[in-house]
Amino acid sequence: MSEFLFDRRDVEFVLFDQLEVENLVKLPRYQDFSRELFEMVLGEAVKFAAGKLAPTNEQADAEGVRLEDGKVILPESYPPLYKEFCEGGWFAPVHTPDYGGQGLPQSVGMAAIEAFIAAHPSFMFFSGLTVSAGHLIEVHGTDRDVELYLEKMYTGEWGGTMCLTEPQAGSALGDLTTTATPVEGEDFYKIVGNKIFISAGDQNLTENIIHLVLARVPGDPEGSKGISLFIVPRERVNADGSIGESNDVAITGLEEKMGIHASPTCSISFGDNDECRGWLVGERCRGLQYMFQMMNEARLVTGLQGVAIGNSAYQSALAYAKERAQGPKVTDRSESPKSVAIIEHPDVRRNLMTMKAYGEALRAMLINTAFLSDHAMYNEDEAVKTKSQDMLDLLTPICKAFCSDMGFKMTEIAMQVFGGYGYIKEYGVEQKMRDVKIASIYEGTNGIQALDLLGRKMRMKNGGLFLTWLQDTNEFLAELSEDETLGEMAKQVDAAKNALGEAAFGFTATGKKDPEYPLLHATPYLRMFGLVESARLLLKQASIAQTRLEAIWAEKGVDATDDEARKALIEQNDDVRFYENKVKTASFFIYQILPEARAILKSIQSGDRSALDVAL
Amino acid sequence: MSEFLFDRRDVEFVLFDQLEVENLVKLPRYQDFSRELFEMVLGEAVKFAAGKLAPTNEQADAEGVRLEDGKVILPESYPPLYKEFCEGGWFAPVHTPDYGGQGLPQSVGMAAIEAFIAAHPSFMFFSGLTVSAGHLIEVHGTDRDVELYLEKMYTGEWGGTMCLTEPQAGSALGDLTTTATPVEGEDFYKIVGNKIFISAGDQNLTENIIHLVLARVPGDPEGSKGISLFIVPRERVNADGSIGESNDVAITGLEEKMGIHASPTCSISFGDNDECRGWLVGERCRGLQYMFQMMNEARLVTGLQGVAIGNSAYQSALAYAKERAQGPKVTDRSESPKSVAIIEHPDVRRNLMTMKAYGEALRAMLINTAFLSDHAMYNEDEAVKTKSQDMLDLLTPICKAFCSDMGFKMTEIAMQVFGGYGYIKEYGVEQKMRDVKIASIYEGTNGIQALDLLGRKMRMKNGGLFLTWLQDTNEFLAELSEDETLGEMAKQVDAAKNALGEAAFGFTATGKKDPEYPLLHATPYLRMFGLVESARLLLKQASIAQTRLEAIWAEKGVDATDDEARKALIEQNDDVRFYENKVKTASFFIYQILPEARAILKSIQSGDRSALDVAL
Repeated sequence: MSEFLFDRRDVEFVLFDQLEVENLVKLPRYQDFSRELFEMVLGEAVKFAAGKLAPTNEQADAEGVRLEDGKVILPESYPPLYKEFCEGGWFAPVHTPDYGGQGLPQSVGMAAIEAFIAAHPSFMFFSGLTVSAGHLIEVHGTDRDVELYLEKMYTGEWGGTMCLTEPQAGSALGDLTTTATPVEGEDFYKIVGNKIFISAGDQNLTENIIHLVLARVPGDPEGSKGISLFIVPRERVNADGSIGESNDVAITGLEEKMGIHASPTCSISFGDNDECRGWLVGERCRGLQYMFQMMNEARLVTGLQGVAIGNSAYQSALAYAKERAQGPKVTDRSESPKSVAIIEHPDVRRNLMTMKAYGEALRAMLINTAFLSDHAMYNEDEAVKTKSQDMLDLLTPICKAFCSDMGFKMTEIAMQVFGGYGYIKEYGVEQKMRDVKIASIYEGTNGIQALDLLGRKMRMKNGGLFLTWLQDTNEFLAELSEDETLGEMAKQVDAAKNALGEAAFGFTATGKKDPEYPLLHATPYLRMFGLVESARLLLKQASIAQTRLEAIWAEKGVDATDDEARKALIEQNDDVRFYENKVKTASFFIYQILPEARAILKSIQSGDRSALDVAL
Repeated sequence: MSEFLFDRRDVEFVLFDQLEVENLVKLPRYQDFSRELFEMVLGEAVKFAAGKLAPTNEQADAEGVRLEDGKVILPESYPPLYKEFCEGGWFAPVHTPDYGGQGLPQSVGMAAIEAFIAAHPSFMFFSGLTVSAGHLIEVHGTDRDVELYLEKMYTGEWGGTMCLTEPQAGSALGDLTTTATPVEGEDFYKIVGNKIFISAGDQNLTENIIHLVLARVPGDPEGSKGISLFIVPRERVNADGSIGESNDVAITGLEEKMGIHASPTCSISFGDNDECRGWLVGERCRGLQYMFQMMNEARLVTGLQGVAIGNSAYQSALAYAKERAQGPKVTDRSESPKSVAIIEHPDVRRNLMTMKAYGEALRAMLINTAFLSDHAMYNEDEAVKTKSQDMLDLLTPICKAFCSDMGFKMTEIAMQVFGGYGYIKEYGVEQKMRDVKIASIYEGTNGIQALDLLGRKMRMKNGGLFLTWLQDTNEFLAELSEDETLGEMAKQVDAAKNALGEAAFGFTATGKKDPEYPLLHATPYLRMFGLVESARLLLKQASIAQTRLEAIWAEKGVDATDDEARKALIEQNDDVRFYENKVKTASFFIYQILPEARAILKSIQSGDRSALDVAL
């Protein structure tokens, strides 16, 4: 089993140096927190991840889950681990303390959850799904629902799921056929239908599971406009909160998946015996709207899976590259050259640096977006609130798709660094690759995210979201344009940002005549946006690091043009090493990876319709 | 289980329309063949793949392999399947009929093996490794070795392996520690050492296995210059070819891998009891040279795994996209729009077309390179022979790395088309992804291939190989430069080709001062070369297709500028559909994918050394 490695320094740099999340404590919602408290929480989270979660991850993957007499049985390590996880207060870190959550900002909570997912991806499905379902009840449920379910769901006493997909209705939920029939004189509906791909759909951890089920009331409109949302507990709940009769919910199957083997993905049948009761959430026919609201939050967590697992793969590969000796340095011209650690080989360095650059960009992107949601929800200045919501809306599909795809890419690169040892189970890289893959698929495939970005988000407020983003980016780049060290990098980012704008305006023009053409480029466009946003964030980090470096050099009397003196200081001082590396990471991303943005623009502007015209 | 789908039409197009392999029968080696025979062999191969191999693939993956009392036990389906495979004459399709092979050209043999690998990747390791080992004996062995082993190995009566890697010696084979000690008065050496990652290292299919083992004779030079190659049968072989005593070869472990579960990857211990005998192959200290020669052939087969599995994933995704209905067409403005097959959605079409373009390019690249090897080995015109060998040398690392990486990429895209159904076992896509991944790693990681291309092949004959490739490409592009349909595409390819040259000449200049800088860009450079070579081959296919189309239009009286008439003809005539699609596939690749080549040039020319300078 490989050691748990987590770059806490980089996480704290994003939180405290880049975003200055400690300022969030000025908002009433977060007034009881402080920077010290945030740091302590993060420290404890990393400790729990390293000490409790990581040691059980590999064995849980090997053991998997099974269905016995209609009940899902999880790996043996799960029940005690779950108990400790709940008792540690980790079940609902960002949800309201009024019902058992920790009430942390999303930004800080995401950082903690990054450590958890990195340590044990499968285990994190249970709390993730349950609190998402709980939050829907918190926002749209009745007082009765909140009192009956919420605390139990935010503390992990009961589980929760989201039941959306049916065999014939995946990306197109409007085609679902599950029905909810009102019962004369009762407050519940009768639910009948079959759902598939239900994450954490059953388990042997809690005595009840609260399913949130999308269904249609007979007579309501066809398609997505007639879908409502229902609370369907596995066991009915009495008025006093105790558990009553069984609610006719049956687990009918368990998927065999490529990864996340220790997380059960269930088929569920509701109302086989016509005895399944569901309680409407909010208003009739608004179910999809509620669900999408919840899904937008879940999309950040899905992006976070890419961030967490991708960075975890990088950390493993980095450690391996430092210890694995193989072949001499290319510059060694001696008679019998000695093998060196593979980190000395340029091609391996390129692989490591590619992972580092993507990994730090993804983390910054994800935590920054979560930070926007903190302001969107709780800032009291309406202008800040609105702008934060706008940026959150714009960046959410990019976070979900870019972070999951690039997280997967990072596991691919990490495997190459390991060579044959990456393809076998020993170092855990192959499991990371299998586990992270799902993030590109669920919560709306990455293709759906691209359509959401191009078809909805770019058009919201008449393009106003994108214009705001452009303006902010312009301002930031203008500040750096004369900078001696970073000015040239800023120019490269500026050009890529312009390409992004050019593509967008081009779509508006061509889309009128040929609405399919822009959609054909939705996925590359999202990728392009992800690249530019990554470059922007890494450049921002570099500018912070450069300022810190200059202060340290001044203090130590080091001449910035004296390479040897700078190298010597790197060896002595971990801060200097970190900051120097931040500048180099931005440079690497901007010069080695960002040029792809222009290539994408070129393909968008080609006018090539072959993929639409081809008779496949 | 999903149906076996294979694009025989495209394979035949490459063989007969693009390469005109029937002309090979003019060479004495192939004089007994004919086009009809080649077609028949391919037809039978596809039949065997579909009827025998494909139906057992999924179950074999689920069953896996196990080690019992020091013996490897394969899935139950293997022994009878192996028998049929051998009896069908499929064991050594391209090896000499003098010892049981079919003697087919490499180009035709690769096409047949593509079908086999697509149908059952794990099963194909046994014959693949055995005939590679056999070929080494054929070329470098003594008459005794050839008589004792060859026919048994080319017919599958005995197995064979390549034992290279040791725990501390992977990419750097020079560090191996296995020893071969001469025995006074005997023709054999005593072998002592441990090897790992031995594909098909043991099995319950044959009564003997002939291991080829790299080892050092004590006293021979350190490093790669002192390595020799030995024949080490698992069971000793008597002078009459019968099996003698056991040869002290022990299977000590079986790897748990991400994929190719039904192919055993073994750890082998030689000479635990000091009773292991090995026979020197060829001359002392030339073992690595022999092995690399063999590895160059094996690298094409490794690339072929990418071609076969990637294309198989594409075929599955294409079939699924035609049948899976989900969501209405974006252009459908009706009141209650109906769900259509997802192949109607632009983003899905882009995914399919990306796979199609890569898949057909990879196949053409691989079969073309195999065709070069046919001429390099058997053409009697020395100039043709030499030039073919040069191009084979240049293109082999590109075939291996680009085809394996892009084959993997194709499985990733296919999984997105399947959505959640791709992540579960049902359609077999996740197995394809797991199985193909190994091809980027073994037979020299893809990083090693890039170093081979940039550090060796580009410099051979003073850059002469590359110059010949450039000249051929220039001539081909010049022919098309005035073409009304393809001229503009040819210009794009020409620019990308120039970028490739510019990068190469730049490396020569910078490499003198900074030898690490070019190596830092070896992997992107190989990718760039793969992109340009793909574009060149697809454009060549388009030009052939265009000529055929023009003839058909003329015959049918269709005006080429009349889109409706052309569409109508596509519906009626499968040839027309195929040719029209070839032109569109080239267009897609050149306008949507090839622009990346310029982006790579930009990154190479940036001078950015951050990955070398960073203090990781």
